[in-house]
Amino acid sequence: MTEFILDERLARRPVAADWALSTVLFVDDSRFPWVILVPRVPNVTEIYELTDGDQATLMSETVRASRAIKAAFSPDKINVGALGHHVPQLHVHVIGRGRSDPVWPDPVWGPGEREPHAPVPYGDPGFEEALGKLRAALEAA
Amino acid sequence: MTEFILDERLARRPVAADWALSTVLFVDDSRFPWVILVPRVPNVTEIYELTDGDQATLMSETVRASRAIKAAFSPDKINVGALGHHVPQLHVHVIGRGRSDPVWPDPVWGPGEREPHAPVPYGDPGFEEALGKLRAALEAA
Repeated sequence: MTEFILDERLARRPVAADWALSTVLFVDDSRFPWVILVPRVPNVTEIYELTDGDQATLMSETVRASRAIKAAFSPDKINVGALGHHVPQLHVHVIGRGRSDPVWPDPVWGPGEREPHAPVPYGDPGFEEALGKLRAALEAA
Repeated sequence: MTEFILDERLARRPVAADWALSTVLFVDDSRFPWVILVPRVPNVTEIYELTDGDQATLMSETVRASRAIKAAFSPDKINVGALGHHVPQLHVHVIGRGRSDPVWPDPVWGPGEREPHAPVPYGDPGFEEALGKLRAALEAA
């Protein structure tokens, strides 16, 4: 039995919730409400490698995170994406996008992570406020 | 009861399979094996707007498409994404990516759809060959 170890690049992000399957991480980027779901299953890089039961749970947790972001931040659109080019450990992005956000209509990944589209941290006290709002919404969703 | 009508921008793409929930469209871009799943449910733009049953089916069909692409084209990584910035009708991209493909490690959407990352059509006879290979794999998966 291999133990699940969170990838160190993901582990730098604060935990917003711990659900049945996934740990929900918060991304410190004030441009978008953005969480990352990481199923706590060792050695998985693709959704299809999960058991059928875990696939269903990942879907319901993705939906729960989407509803929480919608409720708390009223985005125009939700993005859901599993890419894994930089961090192979399976993780699913759930991001609230606005038609007037600085990257719209492009995706937030890839070129969007480099200049001139680098992340914009919340700073203090925005970070704690956003994380608190998100945690409450994840709990309620 | 509203009837489902496939968005006209999606309808330009050839149908690779018709599954219980989703129509599977083939993207004519020889850089990557790429399909788009469109659940035949009217007036839905977000996964969370589907019923619980349809959400579960969408997950299992996404996994089936991923396995078919993996089996037929042996990519290094599968991308799964639901964005909907340009075409709001709910659709899920499933794309096989290679570490040496021309866009890696960036996502294929957004800036990747514009020059210098514009699509590269298969041409003749590559298009029919790729579509045939994909259809067989989707059937078998």
